[in-house]
Amino acid sequence: MKAKEMMDKDFIYVSPEDTIADVSIKMEDSRRFTSPVVDNEMKLLGWVTSLDITKGLREKKNKISEIMRPKDEIRYLHENDPSRLAVIETSNSKLISIPVLDSNEAVIGVIRSFDIVDTLSSLYEVKVSKLYEAMEKQLKGVTWEELMEASAIISQRTTGKRIKAEDYERNIKNSTFGEAIWATGGLERFFAGLIAVGELVIARKVGRARK
Amino acid sequence: MKAKEMMDKDFIYVSPEDTIADVSIKMEDSRRFTSPVVDNEMKLLGWVTSLDITKGLREKKNKISEIMRPKDEIRYLHENDPSRLAVIETSNSKLISIPVLDSNEAVIGVIRSFDIVDTLSSLYEVKVSKLYEAMEKQLKGVTWEELMEASAIISQRTTGKRIKAEDYERNIKNSTFGEAIWATGGLERFFAGLIAVGELVIARKVGRARK
Repeated sequence: MKAKEMMDKDFIYVSPEDTIADVSIKMEDSRRFTSPVVDNEMKLLGWVTSLDITKGLREKKNKISEIMRPKDEIRYLHENDPSRLAVIETSNSKLISIPVLDSNEAVIGVIRSFDIVDTLSSLYEVKVSKLYEAMEKQLKGVTWEELMEASAIISQRTTGKRIKAEDYERNIKNSTFGEAIWATGGLERFFAGLIAVGELVIARKVGRARK
Repeated sequence: MKAKEMMDKDFIYVSPEDTIADVSIKMEDSRRFTSPVVDNEMKLLGWVTSLDITKGLREKKNKISEIMRPKDEIRYLHENDPSRLAVIETSNSKLISIPVLDSNEAVIGVIRSFDIVDTLSSLYEVKVSKLYEAMEKQLKGVTWEELMEASAIISQRTTGKRIKAEDYERNIKNSTFGEAIWATGGLERFFAGLIAVGELVIARKVGRARK
């Protein structure tokens, strides 16, 4: 995934010549806490946040050029950069948004922290049953019932708690990948559990074929 | 994971009686775009953002009580709520932070969008090779070399591109779970590929055992 695929093209931008008061209204109306400062060709010159604005208003400054942070002090990405750089920057530098530039250094979008949350969380919201469906489809000759039966056995082996196949099925239909990872104690463990289920059904399938 | 495990306990808070100018300085100095408004017992009364502050400063308002949004209009969580509610709220309502309350309705922390990015992205940064290590550990009697060999075969079957086992190994040591999901086109597909690898090594293992 590239930065341009994660960015929001619907962003505000301001000129260094705009007044701080005008920009504050623009930011309030659009509910944006940050804005790139650009020239007439949309080239990035700097960055302002609503915290720069409150300071500017309080100190009776006039123009954006008086309060903006210059380009060399801010973080930005180019459109073909991997979007995980946005994730890493946001997380490490505690940013709420990052401008995305094209090859002419013009601003073409902004990646905001909640856009990242939105993208990342879509993965977490995948139902565990979808992974079982992928497993069923992949393992030809293994039925859904066999998968549930094997999962109940593996689950009991791991947790020590007895669970019926139909209860297991209800659980995975209701729970998400994110919940399952937290419940099992990490991606590797969750994944090892699924492999154990796969191993058991395959062993049984091979056993059947031999008879 | 509960809300209290994801929240940042290092947060600012203000009183309805504070002046807007004082709060703006507090927010600028701490680089916080939002703040809960609380009473003397830290009970949540409302919420202000730096956009409320810019408007208040421009309109020459005086106290926080004149500009804050009241509690019944804002989103908050209780400490034992699942943290995925914070993820869903942030993503759906495009919030940059959410206060977390204890059972007395007192504010005990704030979940910020970049904290969520930080938590979610740690999963994405898991190296794919870690999943293979989990698979190797789970599938007793299967060697790492057999796993790499099987992966190269499955990869070639899926992509049509020939790849050597040692190149595959280098790839999974360098690539993250997040990259792998994006590259394969989703969690289910990525997972189906791993199951296919598991199936192949198990079939070979069973074949060996039979001889």
